[in-house]
Amino acid sequence: MAPPSPSPGPETNMDVDYVLSYRFATTEKKAAIGQFEKLIKALSDVGLATEVRSGEDQSLLVFVKVASQEHLYGEVYRSRVKDWMHGVRAAAPEKETKQALEADPLYEAERLRIIHQLIVNSPSEGGAGITPKSGEWKNVESIFALHDREYNKKWIQKWSTSYLLKPEDLDEIRDRLGEKIAYYFAFTQSYFSFLVLPAAFGLGAWLVLGHFSPIYAVFSSLWCIVFTEYWKHQEVDLAIRWGVRNVSRIEAHRREFKHEQEITDPVTGEKAQIFPSTKRLQRQILVVPFALVVALILGTLIATCFGIEVFISEVYSGPLQWILVFLPTGILTTMMPILTGILTNIANRLTDFENYETEAAHQTALTYKLFIINFITSYLGIFLTAFVYVPFGSLIVPYLDIFSLTVRPFAENEKQLQGADSSFSINPDRLRKQVIYFTVTAQIVNQALEVVMPYIKRKGFAKYKKFQSERAMRNGGGAPHAFVNDAPEEAAFLERVRQEAQLDVYDVSTDLREMVLQFGYLSLFSVVWPLTACSFLVNDWLELRTDALKIAVEMQRPTPFRADTIGPWLDSLSLLAWLGGLTSSALVYLFSNDGIGPGGRPHEIKGWALLLTVFFAEHTFLVVRWVVRISIAKIDSPGRQKERRERYIVRKKYFDESLESLGKVRPLKDEGVVEITRESLEEDARRASMGDARPEDAFWNRQRGWREAAKMGTVLIERVAEERTVETKKEL
Amino acid sequence: MAPPSPSPGPETNMDVDYVLSYRFATTEKKAAIGQFEKLIKALSDVGLATEVRSGEDQSLLVFVKVASQEHLYGEVYRSRVKDWMHGVRAAAPEKETKQALEADPLYEAERLRIIHQLIVNSPSEGGAGITPKSGEWKNVESIFALHDREYNKKWIQKWSTSYLLKPEDLDEIRDRLGEKIAYYFAFTQSYFSFLVLPAAFGLGAWLVLGHFSPIYAVFSSLWCIVFTEYWKHQEVDLAIRWGVRNVSRIEAHRREFKHEQEITDPVTGEKAQIFPSTKRLQRQILVVPFALVVALILGTLIATCFGIEVFISEVYSGPLQWILVFLPTGILTTMMPILTGILTNIANRLTDFENYETEAAHQTALTYKLFIINFITSYLGIFLTAFVYVPFGSLIVPYLDIFSLTVRPFAENEKQLQGADSSFSINPDRLRKQVIYFTVTAQIVNQALEVVMPYIKRKGFAKYKKFQSERAMRNGGGAPHAFVNDAPEEAAFLERVRQEAQLDVYDVSTDLREMVLQFGYLSLFSVVWPLTACSFLVNDWLELRTDALKIAVEMQRPTPFRADTIGPWLDSLSLLAWLGGLTSSALVYLFSNDGIGPGGRPHEIKGWALLLTVFFAEHTFLVVRWVVRISIAKIDSPGRQKERRERYIVRKKYFDESLESLGKVRPLKDEGVVEITRESLEEDARRASMGDARPEDAFWNRQRGWREAAKMGTVLIERVAEERTVETKKEL
Repeated sequence: MAPPSPSPGPETNMDVDYVLSYRFATTEKKAAIGQFEKLIKALSDVGLATEVRSGEDQSLLVFVKVASQEHLYGEVYRSRVKDWMHGVRAAAPEKETKQALEADPLYEAERLRIIHQLIVNSPSEGGAGITPKSGEWKNVESIFALHDREYNKKWIQKWSTSYLLKPEDLDEIRDRLGEKIAYYFAFTQSYFSFLVLPAAFGLGAWLVLGHFSPIYAVFSSLWCIVFTEYWKHQEVDLAIRWGVRNVSRIEAHRREFKHEQEITDPVTGEKAQIFPSTKRLQRQILVVPFALVVALILGTLIATCFGIEVFISEVYSGPLQWILVFLPTGILTTMMPILTGILTNIANRLTDFENYETEAAHQTALTYKLFIINFITSYLGIFLTAFVYVPFGSLIVPYLDIFSLTVRPFAENEKQLQGADSSFSINPDRLRKQVIYFTVTAQIVNQALEVVMPYIKRKGFAKYKKFQSERAMRNGGGAPHAFVNDAPEEAAFLERVRQEAQLDVYDVSTDLREMVLQFGYLSLFSVVWPLTACSFLVNDWLELRTDALKIAVEMQRPTPFRADTIGPWLDSLSLLAWLGGLTSSALVYLFSNDGIGPGGRPHEIKGWALLLTVFFAEHTFLVVRWVVRISIAKIDSPGRQKERRERYIVRKKYFDESLESLGKVRPLKDEGVVEITRESLEEDARRASMGDARPEDAFWNRQRGWREAAKMGTVLIERVAEERTVETKKEL
Repeated sequence: MAPPSPSPGPETNMDVDYVLSYRFATTEKKAAIGQFEKLIKALSDVGLATEVRSGEDQSLLVFVKVASQEHLYGEVYRSRVKDWMHGVRAAAPEKETKQALEADPLYEAERLRIIHQLIVNSPSEGGAGITPKSGEWKNVESIFALHDREYNKKWIQKWSTSYLLKPEDLDEIRDRLGEKIAYYFAFTQSYFSFLVLPAAFGLGAWLVLGHFSPIYAVFSSLWCIVFTEYWKHQEVDLAIRWGVRNVSRIEAHRREFKHEQEITDPVTGEKAQIFPSTKRLQRQILVVPFALVVALILGTLIATCFGIEVFISEVYSGPLQWILVFLPTGILTTMMPILTGILTNIANRLTDFENYETEAAHQTALTYKLFIINFITSYLGIFLTAFVYVPFGSLIVPYLDIFSLTVRPFAENEKQLQGADSSFSINPDRLRKQVIYFTVTAQIVNQALEVVMPYIKRKGFAKYKKFQSERAMRNGGGAPHAFVNDAPEEAAFLERVRQEAQLDVYDVSTDLREMVLQFGYLSLFSVVWPLTACSFLVNDWLELRTDALKIAVEMQRPTPFRADTIGPWLDSLSLLAWLGGLTSSALVYLFSNDGIGPGGRPHEIKGWALLLTVFFAEHTFLVVRWVVRISIAKIDSPGRQKERRERYIVRKKYFDESLESLGKVRPLKDEGVVEITRESLEEDARRASMGDARPEDAFWNRQRGWREAAKMGTVLIERVAEERTVETKKEL
């Protein structure tokens, strides 16, 4: 197993597998030393070699590597046996580890994952039980692997110069960063490729069909169905390709789980920690008030800003209108992050309170809550325009003068605050502008923030550091921190490690969420502006590359985790596609011909017609989805074929082994035909008359061997045939 | 393994496992004999002992039993190994069969199933390959086991005298008749117990709330959701209880499957027969025109009869009205069976044409088609009344005079055929009457037909037989058929077997369909007449017992098959519950206050309000279903616990076995602390200066052993702590 960078050079990682940052700034000296010794001891006990160097700001860096290859092989074998038990692998791994590793070599992410488990798993599971930032180990600030800089350079270079990512590129991500992150890239790549269709069709629709085209709406909904269902199919394929199918069955126990009872299973003798599911259900019900609160708070904020904006742009006619229009945007951009921050915090606490036993269940519950928040922040504004402002605008706008308070200071007279009520009419362009804002402007801003912000942060931080150390030099003349003790041949390396220790931890679910929300705009509102997909196509090409850059440069090297799905976001995807069917049909009805009726005036909206459209569209959607799902489930793929084949081989092997001991079926002894003679009949009679014989035995002894049975059959058939002939003759 | 009836007596089955009826009436004598010999030989080759007796009407009865216990044990072992391979059993069965059978005794249905497989499985699977009524074996008319009369008597007695069936009663069914039939009884029993709730609530609603109560509608929909979801949960529990979980994964190859290509798998060397799924998909699309044709034909018939009936009862005022009203019923009862027969035939052919590889896929596809037919025949009439006659009645009725043709011969004058157009008003009682007809009258009639018809048929047939044989005696004086050759001690037994050979084959899916359709009336229309569930409660108590009686008396003993679900009917159940949410809400809106508006006149139906009601109800339904589904999925049960425990034990065993060879984790050698002295530093420097040393080695050699690392940590922490003190002092 070669370490990440086999040849020593300026970018060497010194064979280091993981770095632990131990911070003792807030700890009393003696306790810090005691705990540190315990840490080193714990690592050593699980077979990890350690080296200690000083770190930034009252911290130590503990470098860790596996002490011996045999030891690592043992862990790999143990992990693979566990996989086999849970059905991730078809066959048990070979006991001879050398052979096993030759047949199925260890890839880097697997190696790092196994070592990470060795560090963090509880001692009962054979690990050192180091849990960063919690409990006993709160001094351990982070555990991270070192970037492979040479590889990263090549990676970014390759991706930024190629138009399309090939499956091999994704395989490489999987080999380096693990399946969880690879799934994100695979999903985004797959989504990107699929986007070509609605982008092309959307461009055509924009040129030819105009806005709110029912044809485009049908196409878009169909595309959403096919994409989500196809992705579900592809997910399985990828899992097979990467050998991680069913890993989600290996449930990682959640450390924060608090049990209520501890029972010892009478059969297994295993201690089971139990939290009653009825109690959890009661806690889960809290998600309903949570959702209502989120909707209320964020809804009020968005609706208020929306109202102010409409008031200013459509009613207010005083001075400074051009700048006052940005007032609501200002309120939104300052208030929204604060509120979502608070709500996210509540979501986290609520999920903690629900007290799940496994990491996966916890993540799923949290994701659902985050989806509620994100759904409202992302889509409610457009919903308000489309389904409140447009149909009920003329009813509502007159009441908007309550917002006149916001601009009263700027108005010169009352008249400017009242507008010309009678002249108000719905502005159908508002909806399109809003959609364009969310699907182009916001995406670009977001993209920029994602890349630029961390860069600025990093540079600023470095500057600040430099300034601080210079000041320290001037003031005390002494060495700031302990850097001068670095051996010169290590200085550059340690400098790099200290820098990487400062970086943020990459959370793939944030990026995944971004993609799912983007998909939402496409499914829900692209009928408003068919060029949406074109914008996303460009954006996502960039997104894939900037995310790679972000991971390689802005973040600590992510710990590889396994996954066989993108998880609960898949449900969000399905839900958004479904809602898309509803909104698209409603939008097409409401705005057909740009909302202008046959007479040139805003066309009359009929409640029953709108509802019938939506009702019909929704059920068509569900039926089509069912058909598409069944059809896609039937698609075979090389991956599935491979899996079937492997399973077949394993089964055959076991089956053959198990049945080896069992002889072949022996045909019955052939006793030959005993002529049915007077003697044999007498013999039969004699046997039958033996009082103690069971009637069953008598029954089964009439014909001995199959030849006799066949003979008897012949006799009987012939007799009947004779009768038949006799009867036929008689009838003649 | 004791045979069904261990003590010989008048009801003995003579240790017979199966009886094959070989009919050669239409075959030429020589061919019949040749084929018969082949049959006996084939049976003998797989280790079955045979006895031949003459049967009814130019047929032979071949009695079959397993020749030796060892042979049977081998087959049992083989079957259990296969189960283990497919995940039905957690652990591989023990190789020593005696032990294995003691640990997990063979039950009767398992024994019969294995012997049946031995007879019908293809030679490549180790069977005799006898396929009744098809191909080479078209002379083999049927393969059936013999009823255990003594047990049957006790069974019927017990069931007809107990109010409730206990789980043990179902276990007994499973032991005797196999899991597939046991699942039907378990489902019906579970449905019956659940019915108590809507029956009680329905009675209350009928007394207090009146018809079309929204409260009842909500309750009913909720009940449908809980029942279907609960049953899905219980199904799994039963599967665990009966040890059949995942048996649906063992896919039985369909004999009629026609492959298009045969490819030899390069890896397994197994020949795979392939039929392209795209081609099958094309054929499956034919289900759309099929559904349309079914809807058109049956719909026209039902609508016509409905129209005639409305015309006669509401428009026609001539003579004989009281009897003419039954005219449409007459048309329906004669035409409907003919049409459904033809359509079922088409459904069968269509499914054959779709050419499925497995029995399960074939059955599923067929079930969907049958469901379409049954849905229309069962519910369309009521749908027409509720959603066409009532809302649009006053528009349609005037056009019904096209049906005057049907009664013109009876009318005395034209006026009688025209009715009093102006006086026509919707008859809201019609809907209730219709629902009562379907949920009470039709159920009773059906029940009666199911029990009485076969009885009459059987008795009539026996009479006819007797008459025929008497005539034969009178005419020829000779023995009719070959019965006189029966040995006297066997005569009674053979008589019984010949009679059982004449009986029909029991098809459990017919009974299951009946239950599902009944559930449909409850979910779709019970809001019309809340006593529906009461009627069903009584009906189903009887149904369970008459079905038992039917199996025991009217039918051949069914061959036991395994199952771990009620199969595709489960989907129908879910669909009906869903549609129930739609129809109930629509009915409540349409008929609230018995369809009478506030002014006492039929109330005005508003399209948008109806649609909004349905839209709202449907989405509430879906959300509630999702919640119920998640909640029920969390319910634990002794079965599931048992399964988990078993799986745990097996895993632990394998895991321990696999890791035995692997030594325990060895902690690193404790090299002791080497004091950091001038010498040691020089030594370090020396090592570092050795040109050929890798920098990685130098890095990892600075601290030898964990104690040195810990020591270094201490040194560093102390140094920082010192600095900290110095700085604090300075600041002071």
